[in-house]
Amino acid sequence: MTDAAGRPGPGPGGRVADLENRLAEAQDLRLRAAADLDNLRKRCATQARSAADEARIQVARQWLPVIDDLERALEHAEADPSVIVEGIQAVRDEALGVLVKLGFARRDDTGVVFDPTRHHAVASKADPGAPPGTVVEVVQPAYGDGDHQLRPAQVVVAEAD
Amino acid sequence: MTDAAGRPGPGPGGRVADLENRLAEAQDLRLRAAADLDNLRKRCATQARSAADEARIQVARQWLPVIDDLERALEHAEADPSVIVEGIQAVRDEALGVLVKLGFARRDDTGVVFDPTRHHAVASKADPGAPPGTVVEVVQPAYGDGDHQLRPAQVVVAEAD
Repeated sequence: MTDAAGRPGPGPGGRVADLENRLAEAQDLRLRAAADLDNLRKRCATQARSAADEARIQVARQWLPVIDDLERALEHAEADPSVIVEGIQAVRDEALGVLVKLGFARRDDTGVVFDPTRHHAVASKADPGAPPGTVVEVVQPAYGDGDHQLRPAQVVVAEAD
Repeated sequence: MTDAAGRPGPGPGGRVADLENRLAEAQDLRLRAAADLDNLRKRCATQARSAADEARIQVARQWLPVIDDLERALEHAEADPSVIVEGIQAVRDEALGVLVKLGFARRDDTGVVFDPTRHHAVASKADPGAPPGTVVEVVQPAYGDGDHQLRPAQVVVAEAD
């Protein structure tokens, strides 16, 4: 049954044609969504890879001035060896500054209670001035905190009396 | 029209019921695909962020031994200042090694033809021994190559005679 313009009119025949059209459309949209999903999945993996590459470049780049200054200090040392200690101290401070900027500040754990998620005990010693189980000496400092920890601190822990 | 089991039989009524079921199903699948797409989009952004965070941590972590050794060299220098130059040279080599491992080897551009994508000319000079337009001196070295370049080299270029 069709009207004057050839469109399906009301009645069972028109209802079937209408449903067939809507079904074809819904199936088409579903296939497109599946294709979008597939594309996004591929793009997602690529995006994660390039985000990681970009991050690696950005972080590595920040160390170049440290190396430049290290070499400058070495050049000056050839002319006047007495200036090098000061120069190298400045380079060390610069390197620590890079880590602070990256969100990985050096942590001073002296005096805090030993925490296995943040400290590796390399030794223990009797220390009448320190409560047992606290850090009395940091052998190698930690950088960063919580989820953003570059490494735990290596520490010496106060023994129980 | 239904058969003995109450299922829609053949004929326009059965055809309509069948199409309605298939349409509902196709629409449901389409909505689910749209929801999957939305979830994946969110997960994708999170994944890229955590890939970048992880890369930042991995790269930054590789510099810690360099800083440790820098500090060790400074400590030794307090006892015997004459040893520091050798110690610092070793630290410099260690830092360059980190960059090599990260894929950003130092590049020696001396003698190559000037290339604006890889070189910044900071000066030019007459040099009878060098073909015009070639690099006669590297003021600041480049690290990395092609897409993986941390910085271009600062160079002095040979002038035309």
